[in-house]
Amino acid sequence: MGKCLIAQSGGPTAVINATLAGIVKANQENPVYDAVWGGLHGIEGILQEHFVDLTNMGEEENLILRQTPSSALGACRYKLRRSDPDAFKEVFRILDKYEIDTLFYIGGNDSMDTVAALAAYAAKHGISNHRFIGCPKTVDNDLVVTDLCPGFGSAAKYIATTAQQTWLDLNVYPNSRKEIFILETMGRDAGWLAASSCLSGIVDILIVPEVPFDREDFLNRVKVIMEQKSKCYIVVSEGARYSDGTYVSAGETRIDAFGTVVLGGAANALQQMILEAGVSQRCRVMDLSSAQRSAASEQSLFDVEASYNIGVHAHELSRDPSFTGRMIAVKRYDDEDKPMEFFGIEAEKVSNIVRNFPLEWLREDYAGVTGEAIAYMRPLIQGTPDIIIIDGLPAYVLPYYGDPKLSGVNK
Amino acid sequence: MGKCLIAQSGGPTAVINATLAGIVKANQENPVYDAVWGGLHGIEGILQEHFVDLTNMGEEENLILRQTPSSALGACRYKLRRSDPDAFKEVFRILDKYEIDTLFYIGGNDSMDTVAALAAYAAKHGISNHRFIGCPKTVDNDLVVTDLCPGFGSAAKYIATTAQQTWLDLNVYPNSRKEIFILETMGRDAGWLAASSCLSGIVDILIVPEVPFDREDFLNRVKVIMEQKSKCYIVVSEGARYSDGTYVSAGETRIDAFGTVVLGGAANALQQMILEAGVSQRCRVMDLSSAQRSAASEQSLFDVEASYNIGVHAHELSRDPSFTGRMIAVKRYDDEDKPMEFFGIEAEKVSNIVRNFPLEWLREDYAGVTGEAIAYMRPLIQGTPDIIIIDGLPAYVLPYYGDPKLSGVNK
Repeated sequence: MGKCLIAQSGGPTAVINATLAGIVKANQENPVYDAVWGGLHGIEGILQEHFVDLTNMGEEENLILRQTPSSALGACRYKLRRSDPDAFKEVFRILDKYEIDTLFYIGGNDSMDTVAALAAYAAKHGISNHRFIGCPKTVDNDLVVTDLCPGFGSAAKYIATTAQQTWLDLNVYPNSRKEIFILETMGRDAGWLAASSCLSGIVDILIVPEVPFDREDFLNRVKVIMEQKSKCYIVVSEGARYSDGTYVSAGETRIDAFGTVVLGGAANALQQMILEAGVSQRCRVMDLSSAQRSAASEQSLFDVEASYNIGVHAHELSRDPSFTGRMIAVKRYDDEDKPMEFFGIEAEKVSNIVRNFPLEWLREDYAGVTGEAIAYMRPLIQGTPDIIIIDGLPAYVLPYYGDPKLSGVNK
Repeated sequence: MGKCLIAQSGGPTAVINATLAGIVKANQENPVYDAVWGGLHGIEGILQEHFVDLTNMGEEENLILRQTPSSALGACRYKLRRSDPDAFKEVFRILDKYEIDTLFYIGGNDSMDTVAALAAYAAKHGISNHRFIGCPKTVDNDLVVTDLCPGFGSAAKYIATTAQQTWLDLNVYPNSRKEIFILETMGRDAGWLAASSCLSGIVDILIVPEVPFDREDFLNRVKVIMEQKSKCYIVVSEGARYSDGTYVSAGETRIDAFGTVVLGGAANALQQMILEAGVSQRCRVMDLSSAQRSAASEQSLFDVEASYNIGVHAHELSRDPSFTGRMIAVKRYDDEDKPMEFFGIEAEKVSNIVRNFPLEWLREDYAGVTGEAIAYMRPLIQGTPDIIIIDGLPAYVLPYYGDPKLSGVNK
């Protein structure tokens, strides 16, 4: 048996490390490989031969790894280009040098493209001693074929909880005080994260990239709601755009006196419209920034288990020497005893395709989502994992790519 | 026995309702009053005779009330002015009309002034059948005499957790990618909330209102840190200011083409400085907005218990007919069996005074706080309450001031 190598790529999530923990644990319980290595900073670090040995990770570290947000192995934005055969040759040289049989690549769209490209290169060159397996992760929930993407459930739980709590805060003063709150989520192309706020049941206006934004329609809708109840709760995707494709946030991006580009957000742009139109004098804005993809303190247990078991199944399926160029996908069932099933699909069927939020799940007039959408999302936010706390804060594993002297949990 | 009336005022917190729950529960277990009423929207609603009867609140509702953020009775910004004797007369007329013996007023600085003023008015006019008792709450932790203010501990836990998690996210890419993260907290005059982020142990630069801000010193410090490690984590109070008292955020507030004032934050202003100075091309900003005072999903158990027991002790101390014009204060001990003691102090000793973050607890060069500061804050974030979850989200009590048809928990 050779080694397996695990790497992570792209924007992290609150549960991305659970897949890593799952592969490590699976190999301890049902060994397939002599050693389990982590590749640091994705393909970028692999090309620099930066590795860490995770084979004998202890039980406590494995548990804490599952609740550690961000990518413990580090991430990269580097993409293997099919037009650069030297890079491919170099990857295979390194895999041979260290006797690495299987590369597990945890990531989103781009990473699945890398998995497909490496498998295609191997097939083309008659290389059969290396396998490439993709494990999905993305808060955006925008991968096709799989019923869910680990990371989305926890982000949805965090977003819906934040919406619920800030909505209660928004409503604390009497009706004589008119106020608006705008929450901005991630989602450059797909509205899943913004839509997840509707799990709270309190969203008055939802703006997603899938529906062209119209300034007048929007302001009229806000006015109607403000007349009804003096408060209005708005949620917007960062990728909200007009019918011509211009981002709503573009109007807020400006060049200042020093020639510097000041980036604004979609929520700031909506706030601006509301203030200009005189709809309300008070309009608070919150951009959930990177907290929405790293809020492990709001992990959904369902999401952690999906992520962990993707790792376990990826490890098990990799026993089959022909299992390469595949991504592990999830089929979800409304069945407590068997809530999920895992299977392999061709990575190239997933790469570079965005699954949008279904238009038929959106209500008219920016009025949020349908019951069907809620029924889809609700199971993904269920359950609260037992979080190990140190000194009042969630314990976490220090990044494996850091100064080795620093590595270890925060105690 | 007459009735007691409870009201809430000012900006809410994640645990403000625990005090309300404590008074209601205490009167069920050790009755002092025939009835426990809630006054809606503070003094403003009391003057309009808007009440709700809470005497027989059920156990489940009481438990859920403790985990409900924001003010379940509603809040107000209305302040009784000593120069307006008619308003005082009206309050006493209403208390007489409904046979209300005691008013418990849950709030911050301004509310303690109201408590002091009402007690002084009663003394001056020989009125002895009404008592006025203040219960402290404020995320700002800026009340004097009391060792802690309920609301701060939970906000501190939320802020430190968010800092820890977004710091892990900030560090995910290799050193070749230079990035800065700026977290903005509340705190117009006191730096407690911003300083609480240091509980995470990851803050590189801390900017609080107590230390005059200097643009050059700040940028130099950022440059040094970026040279050392390519990443920099900054936390700033909204009230950060220059030595002449100008807010750092003032530079970011601008009048747009339509003549509208666009409010900017302190973090946006720092981001602007960093981009202008060319220290980093990437600088992400997060303003914790009202989430930091309403994140009940991150309640600290210590904080909930402090808030709840303030209610219990306020109720018990109110048996004494001479106990009026007082606020319940907390003395904290490093003793597991007796972590807190509660006592009454004159409300006027607290009202209109701000307790700043101690200068001697701040390290030079914006480098965060001392071990003494951490030792003070650490106990306040301890413990995680058992949260009742409904459909994957924390259960909450709908505001008592809402449409009565809607009142009840979210199920």
